[in-house]
Parts: sequence; structure tokens; C-alpha cells
Amino acid sequence: MTKSFYPPLRTLMGPGPSDVSPRVLAAMARPTIGHLDPEFIRMMDEVKQMLQYAFKTDSPLTMPISAPGSAGMEACFVNLVEPGDKVIVCQNGVFGGRMKENVERFGGIAIMVEDEWGKPVDPAKVESAFAANSDVKILAFVHAETSTGVLSDAKRLCQIARDNDALSIVDAVTSLGGSELDVAGWGIDAVYSGTQKCLSCPPGISPISFSERAVEAIEKRQSKTPSWFLDQKLVMGYWGGGAKRAYHHTAPVNSLYAFHESLVMLEEEGLENAWARHRHHHDALRVGLEAMGIGFLVDEPYRLPQLNSVFVPEGIDEAKVRSQLLANYNLEIGAGLGALAGKVWRIGLMGSACNKQNVLLCLSALENTLSGMGADIAKGQALPAAEAFYAE
Amino acid sequence: MTKSFYPPLRTLMGPGPSDVSPRVLAAMARPTIGHLDPEFIRMMDEVKQMLQYAFKTDSPLTMPISAPGSAGMEACFVNLVEPGDKVIVCQNGVFGGRMKENVERFGGIAIMVEDEWGKPVDPAKVESAFAANSDVKILAFVHAETSTGVLSDAKRLCQIARDNDALSIVDAVTSLGGSELDVAGWGIDAVYSGTQKCLSCPPGISPISFSERAVEAIEKRQSKTPSWFLDQKLVMGYWGGGAKRAYHHTAPVNSLYAFHESLVMLEEEGLENAWARHRHHHDALRVGLEAMGIGFLVDEPYRLPQLNSVFVPEGIDEAKVRSQLLANYNLEIGAGLGALAGKVWRIGLMGSACNKQNVLLCLSALENTLSGMGADIAKGQALPAAEAFYAE
Repeated sequence: MTKSFYPPLRTLMGPGPSDVSPRVLAAMARPTIGHLDPEFIRMMDEVKQMLQYAFKTDSPLTMPISAPGSAGMEACFVNLVEPGDKVIVCQNGVFGGRMKENVERFGGIAIMVEDEWGKPVDPAKVESAFAANSDVKILAFVHAETSTGVLSDAKRLCQIARDNDALSIVDAVTSLGGSELDVAGWGIDAVYSGTQKCLSCPPGISPISFSERAVEAIEKRQSKTPSWFLDQKLVMGYWGGGAKRAYHHTAPVNSLYAFHESLVMLEEEGLENAWARHRHHHDALRVGLEAMGIGFLVDEPYRLPQLNSVFVPEGIDEAKVRSQLLANYNLEIGAGLGALAGKVWRIGLMGSACNKQNVLLCLSALENTLSGMGADIAKGQALPAAEAFYAE
Repeated sequence: MTKSFYPPLRTLMGPGPSDVSPRVLAAMARPTIGHLDPEFIRMMDEVKQMLQYAFKTDSPLTMPISAPGSAGMEACFVNLVEPGDKVIVCQNGVFGGRMKENVERFGGIAIMVEDEWGKPVDPAKVESAFAANSDVKILAFVHAETSTGVLSDAKRLCQIARDNDALSIVDAVTSLGGSELDVAGWGIDAVYSGTQKCLSCPPGISPISFSERAVEAIEKRQSKTPSWFLDQKLVMGYWGGGAKRAYHHTAPVNSLYAFHESLVMLEEEGLENAWARHRHHHDALRVGLEAMGIGFLVDEPYRLPQLNSVFVPEGIDEAKVRSQLLANYNLEIGAGLGALAGKVWRIGLMGSACNKQNVLLCLSALENTLSGMGADIAKGQALPAAEAFYAE
């Protein structure tokens, strides 16, 4: 007979999921009600309004997709890309590659703009790609690359798209709630995110938003969207507003309770304060890591505060370090992906996990573990440096 | 400032979600851990084994999709249907129509076999459709039609598919855990279900299973699956087993805790006992409703015990009855869909909600509400009839 599962108590400082607040966990466990219950519909309206606040948009086509971030990505591409459409896809990490897969699976033509992993998307290359290709329908890029910890200049890239009469699709999975994101102000046409990063909600929901221009493009489609589940014209019958909601699919009721609570917490803190908190604790972590002699993959101006890619010291087995952190400290940090596997760790400071206790725990655990393995690091420096930073 | 959301305490006797056990809600609120955490991977293996038990199959391609039942349907069609493929789709309610949409959106040709809403799929018509069409790749039908409460003969229909060298796709959203379902024994090639019906878990996850023949068909695809999120070849890198899991998407960690617990509860009760419980309380409800003078849409041999479509008494505004049940009893029952809207109610007895208290509450609340509206029903008969049934 299988037994009930009791997870260990971890501190989640990887690339997500991040630590979930007890308030959000408690919300998730409230009694399930029907997905057409008037009380549930009232809650859906609040989710929508708070999500518009988080994204900084008043677009009515703003809602959570009933599946994780990868499905949010797919919802953007499957609704906007038609066979033969040209899409400029910027790749500077794992998720640009996934965007290419999306474009091609829906019959589009992906024009790749490549930048080194760990570098931001180069706007000049994007301009050249527009100059070299006529009739580009969409520019797609990742705002905050979870695989490397790089922030690209979404405002400028979206402006280039507008200047070339193209739509923009932006991956904001790791930026939403952690770094400045201004969907309407920057003219983003389609954006998707996840709940399990800087919003500190369990994974499983993907918030998205489409601009008026994107909605027009969806309405002008020549072919039926090659997905029923993600067809936003159908989904809007349920999420569209008003008292009368058409059944499309059964909403993940309890996951939406949790998401609602995480958005209430964001509203309480204030969006700008949340961004500042991520920056503050990142600075403390950076000071501590640098004092230890650990360096960053990403150049300072492009670093994501909420995801820190740092170099594994010479000669150290990075997987063994992660295993020991998990075993001895219940602390999870992330591995490098793709070309960076074995070379970097990804240390997340996302949402509820972005706090002083976690910064100090991480520095202490990492220093002790690395010392035990004979790594060439400075000892006894990291914690005092971080404490001094906090004392300023 | 938006406030936290506290849902009302409902009794869920509609078409799903059904009442969720406090054990499952408690599991859902346990601390989130990483989707690549060794402890989480151990739990995934248990989910897979228990799901094989629930489906009655030992197929390794048995797993929960990270999205609701509609995405489970889409996972079956998007992986198995290629452009130009002929698919016989049986329609005897809402969900057959959705299957047709799926086939066509993925470039397949849907050959429709229609039966009246409230009737089971007619195997003779399916045989005729195979006789009239060569090279049919797939037969698709709904085992338990949630829109009408009809059970079709899945064993016989799958045999017809095999006799014609076709694969079968079976919608078992409402049957899994509530009515006999024998995936391997009946030779079902692709099956999908939901968590929020007879498994009494919050909505958001869709268990699926593919047979060896289905896996071969997926591996022989000429074209790439037109979905990245639902491409089972990729998903298997994560759910496939073994200690090393490739990241595909971030699993909905807490929703899977809940699903794990609901499967533990099913294992504890025993699959056959769960089927018998659904039958037993259905019989009690039937006796009570018939004593009140309320009749069933579906002929007795094809009735789903877990979903009872019953006629609204002459001259009664069915929506008003549902509103009053919700307002006065916190009791949710379902409306009719499509052609049956306004004519029937759908009374669910699913999973944890399938118990004596709910049967008696529903009979009492319905009788009192209908009496108050002057409906032509027999008074004072329903509860004694049900009590007498239980006393037998």
C-alpha cells in the first residue's frame, strides 16, 4: 500500500519553483467550489484585475492559462503564428530555442538572431534581421533568460518591432514581479509568465496578456488555431468578463485560489517595492559571493537580480555540491543548462525566497561545502561582507 | 486593496469538480519542493504506479498531463493524428464534438458517427462506418459522456477498432474511478481522464495512458507533433522513469501532491469497491428521485451511476432551482448542456461526494425547493424511499 507523501522542508533558491508563502499554501487548500460558481467568477475578476496591475496593462485579454509557463508560451505562438508567417526569434539561452520549436511546429518560419549564452539580445542584430527580411510578422524574445540570468532590453526590442510593423511576443516568466516590466508602456503585444518564480506561487499556472493589436491579428487568422485547449477566442468565452461565462474547460480551481493570494500579496507589497526588494537582496548576495571569490557569468548591467548565474570554482564537481547542499542544508540551487552545464550554478532569489535569511543561509552553506571539498575560495569573508551590506 | 478569497463551503453534486477530501486538500498545501528534487521524483514514480492500477494497465507511457482534462484530450489527438488521417469520431454529447474539433485542428479527417444525446454509441453504426471507409487510423469515442450521463460499451467499441486495424482514443474523464474501466483488458490505445470527477481531486491534472501500439504510431510520425507542451516524446524524458529526468516543463508540484493523495485513497478503498460505492449511492438516489416522480434521461442499462441526468419538472425554471439550492443549501448541481439546456439537471455522485449524506441532502433540498415553486412532484416520498433502500 502506498503511503501519503510528506515532502521535506526545502529552501528553494534554484531557477523556480521558489519558496511558497504559507499564506499561498493555505489558500490552495481551501475547499474546492465549482468553476461556474458565482463566488468563483467574482474571484476570477479579481485575479484578472490584479494581473493587469502586475503586468502594467489594462488589456482585457489578460488571464491565467490553466497550465505551466511552457503552455503560456505555446498559447502566444499557437494563436499568433500561421503557416508561412515569418518570426524573428532571438536566442541567447534555452528558452529562445523553445520559441523556435514553437514557431516551426505551427508552420511558421523562424529567422534566428543568436547571441552568446550569458549575453543579452543585441538590438543591432535584431534591426539587421528586420532589414534583411521583409514581411516579418513577429519578433519573439526572452525578457529574463532563466537559463542564464540575463535581462534583455524589452522596451527597445519592442520599439524595433513596432518600427517594423511587427508584433512582439515576450517571455516574462522570470521577470514578472521581480524586475521592471511594463507591458502597455513598452508596447508588448503578447506576454506570458509563470507563477512559480517571483510571484512565489506553486507551478501550474501561466499568466498571459495580449494587446489590442495582437487580438486583431488573432481575429484575422485565416486558419483555425491548431489547438482547442489554448484557442484564446474560446478561452475568452470563460475568462472574458460579465456574469455569464461559457464553459470551455474546467479551471484549476485551487491553483487559482493560490494565484489569487500571491497577487494579493504583491498588491500589498507594491510592484515597485517588490522589484526593489529583489535588487536589494541580490546586491547582498553578490557582495558575499564576490568576497568568497565567486564570479558572475553575466556582465553587471544585464544581471537579473532574481537569478544569479555564478561560476563553479575550478576543479569542483558542481553536482556533488548541490547534493550536499540538499542533504545538509535542505537548500536547493540550480544547475547550469546546455552549454553551461557543469560550469555555473543558478542561484535564485525569487519572490518569498528573496530575503535576508536565505541570502545568509546560501552564503554560509556554500562556503562551508566548498571549503570541505578543498575549493580555492576566500574563507570567512562572505558573511561579514553581506552583513556589512545589510547594515548600511 | 483586494482581500484574500475565502470560498463558501459547497457540496459539489454537479458534473465536476466534486467534493475534495480534506486529506487531498491537506496534501495540496504541503511545502513546495523542486520538480527535479529526488524526493519529488520518488513521488512521481508512485503516482505512475498508482495510476497504472487505476487505469488497469502496465503501460509505461502512463502519466498525468500538467493541465486539465481538455489538455489530456488534446494530448491524445495531437500525438496520434497526422494531416490526412481518417478518424471515426462518435458523437452522442458535447465531448464527441470537441473530439471532432481536435481531429480537424490537427489536419485529420473526422468521419462522424452520430447518436442522439442521451443514447450510447451504437456499435452497429461504428461497424458501418468502418465498412464504408478504408484506411481509418483511429476510432474515438467517449466512454462516459459527462454532458448526458451515458455509458457506452468501450470494450466492444475497442474490439471493433482492433478488428479494423485501427487505434482507439477513449475519453474516460468521468468513468475513471467511478465505473469499470479496463484499459489493457479492453485494448484501449489512448485514454485520458480528469482528476476532478471520481478521483475527487481538484481540477488541473489530466491522467493519460498510451498502449504499445499507440507509442509505435507516435514514433512513426512523419511530421513533428504540432505542440511542444504536449509532445509525449518530450514529456517522457521527464516522466519516463529512472533517476535522471530531463527538464521539459515545470511540473505542477502541489497539484501532484494532491493527485498522489487521491490515488492513495483509491488504493486504500480498492478500485472495485469504489465502483460498487458509486453504484450503491446511485441506486439510493434513483429510488428517491423516482419516488418524487422525477425521471431519468438515460435508459437504465446505459446510466452512469456517477452522473445522473434527470428531467426538470414541467413548467419549472431550472436555473432558479439551481440558484436556490446554492443559496439555501450550498448545494451545487449541474445544468443541461447544448440541446438539453433547460430540460435536465445533471446530478453528480462522484468520488468523495458519492455518499449517503449527500444523497439525502440532495433529495431533501430538491423536494423542498421544487415544492416551494409549485412543481408537480410527489411529496414526502423521496427520503423514506432512499432510507428504506439504505436499510435493506
